[in-house]
Amino acid sequence: MKKLINKVESVLNEQLLGLGEAHPELLVHQEPVFVTRAVGPIQGKVAILSGGGSDHEPMHCGFVGEGMLDGACPGEIFTSPTPDKMYECAQVIDGGSGVLLIIKNYTGDMLNFETATELLHDSGMPVATVTVDDDVAVKDSLYTAGRRGVANTVLMEKLLGAAAVRGDSLDALEMLGHKINNQGHSLGIALGACTVPAAGRPSFVLADNEMEFGVGIHGEPGIERRPFTTLNNAVDDMFHTLIDHGNYQRTIRVWDRLKGAWREESQSKRALTRGDRVIALVNNLGSTPLSELYGVYHRLAERCAEAGMIIERNLVGSYCTSLDMPGVSITLLQVDDELLSLWDAPVKTPALRWG
Amino acid sequence: MKKLINKVESVLNEQLLGLGEAHPELLVHQEPVFVTRAVGPIQGKVAILSGGGSDHEPMHCGFVGEGMLDGACPGEIFTSPTPDKMYECAQVIDGGSGVLLIIKNYTGDMLNFETATELLHDSGMPVATVTVDDDVAVKDSLYTAGRRGVANTVLMEKLLGAAAVRGDSLDALEMLGHKINNQGHSLGIALGACTVPAAGRPSFVLADNEMEFGVGIHGEPGIERRPFTTLNNAVDDMFHTLIDHGNYQRTIRVWDRLKGAWREESQSKRALTRGDRVIALVNNLGSTPLSELYGVYHRLAERCAEAGMIIERNLVGSYCTSLDMPGVSITLLQVDDELLSLWDAPVKTPALRWG
Repeated sequence: MKKLINKVESVLNEQLLGLGEAHPELLVHQEPVFVTRAVGPIQGKVAILSGGGSDHEPMHCGFVGEGMLDGACPGEIFTSPTPDKMYECAQVIDGGSGVLLIIKNYTGDMLNFETATELLHDSGMPVATVTVDDDVAVKDSLYTAGRRGVANTVLMEKLLGAAAVRGDSLDALEMLGHKINNQGHSLGIALGACTVPAAGRPSFVLADNEMEFGVGIHGEPGIERRPFTTLNNAVDDMFHTLIDHGNYQRTIRVWDRLKGAWREESQSKRALTRGDRVIALVNNLGSTPLSELYGVYHRLAERCAEAGMIIERNLVGSYCTSLDMPGVSITLLQVDDELLSLWDAPVKTPALRWG
Repeated sequence: MKKLINKVESVLNEQLLGLGEAHPELLVHQEPVFVTRAVGPIQGKVAILSGGGSDHEPMHCGFVGEGMLDGACPGEIFTSPTPDKMYECAQVIDGGSGVLLIIKNYTGDMLNFETATELLHDSGMPVATVTVDDDVAVKDSLYTAGRRGVANTVLMEKLLGAAAVRGDSLDALEMLGHKINNQGHSLGIALGACTVPAAGRPSFVLADNEMEFGVGIHGEPGIERRPFTTLNNAVDDMFHTLIDHGNYQRTIRVWDRLKGAWREESQSKRALTRGDRVIALVNNLGSTPLSELYGVYHRLAERCAEAGMIIERNLVGSYCTSLDMPGVSITLLQVDDELLSLWDAPVKTPALRWG
């Protein structure tokens, strides 16, 4: 294994130092390690916080900035951050209107973010959570009870960030988050594995004609290994799976601020259908050239048009990655005028900027 | 070899279709294939045109847009575009004040762009050229007489794009281009090779402890194969080579519009030195994770500080790539207030946007 690192233990710290130096509008905190905007809390605005294991960059630290996240808590590689990070980060970014935590649905993240939620509640801070479980590939998996949270997290963070700037209350943001989660679907494929520095070798081996269909963002297996033939066949398979697997009920844990307790709520994922307007995200899982991503987008646009779906906005690039994994994921999020105006609102972060 | 493509012959066309569909502010022309802004020529503004072999994406087509390129001419993979593309593209983008061609210094590109220059001149269009030869690694190489043009091309296209919007004349842009070229230096390393689709296998093989030091953006060799030890050692070696090899004279071909002929002009590359203000570009050559790029930036910032150089602006990401090559390049461009204000000017392209 060759990687542009000094040693495995220093990768996270060195990359965060570099991020802070390259982007002085961010502040990298130490002990515990987390990232916030340098300007400090915005009074009256609900603060948006996310986080999770590292090496999905630019997610999440690269999305800290105006119009998106107020803070991000990175764990070690593919490892959830501990609750003290979220607790300390929330204290720094709270502008008096509370903090919304965006959590990807992995067992470790759920546990640690839920503990942080309880700690923050006990400290007197208004706090709410939104879970992302957009990966249609698996019902349960190696690291998950229920669907995994993958690239729809990027769209969620952009949209809720804009809604917080608009002045939405914590309750309104939580509701909007559930809506975005229920309307967004993702699926990934890998043509090969990533190499985790501590492991030193690829996390799985595929034959020359195989792809991992429904791969997770840690290289964990998905639906099955399938023959890889062509770009068009792969995108067609992904598209049909996204459509066919998008309709299901599951139980979501919701933090009840009045009672200071979790309650279970049954929510429905809404399948994509003819006439839907969508934001389409073609996401590089690691080492896929941009030329291939645009090839994927071209085929996806054809499939959407045939299915009577309108791609209103798109994003093509590296947003929710898995180290150097060759592969791609597609996210389709059903949107309306309100979500589109939130999407178009200005954003200024290292990884996403417009307006 | 597994790639997210249908067949080798269709890669370029499918990626350009996808690019045009994802970015309706661009127009993809066919027969010959080139990309322009959809809005058409801006009257009175000099048009900026670049191009070159494909699979360095987002360079160049991803830099077409407000404040940067008016048109880009992609060749096949790692192959120069033919003069008819530049000729037709220039006709589409010329707003009456002529066209500036930005050429990376490769034998094929020089030949084809120079032919295009002559054809455009004969058609009565005011035309000028700027060559980029920023790679300090080699004096002559596999595809080049003289230094190769690499990632300083990205900075050149941004800065000249802004100067054209400012209203600079063709002559002024040519002068400014030579200045940017003489003040910018780049060096790349690879930890492995890229795989060209038509070849179907990696273009070279490195041992587990080797890096290609001074690699080109087609995977062509550079200074030598060296042991790869750590990130810090590699960045230190790159930094010192950038500083030490930056001072030399060479002959540049300049198009004389009055005479309708080429003349040779001796120009000096200016080495970087203490007190210099720079734009630093840490560029992913392909499959290097963002975490490692920020690690590189962190070490580079330390080296610059020690050498008394001030990084005024930076760019960290995938801008001038070589398919899926694991590796990185560093570009340092000496700047002044004027160049910084051009850098900060608004830009709206698929790959670079701010302001």
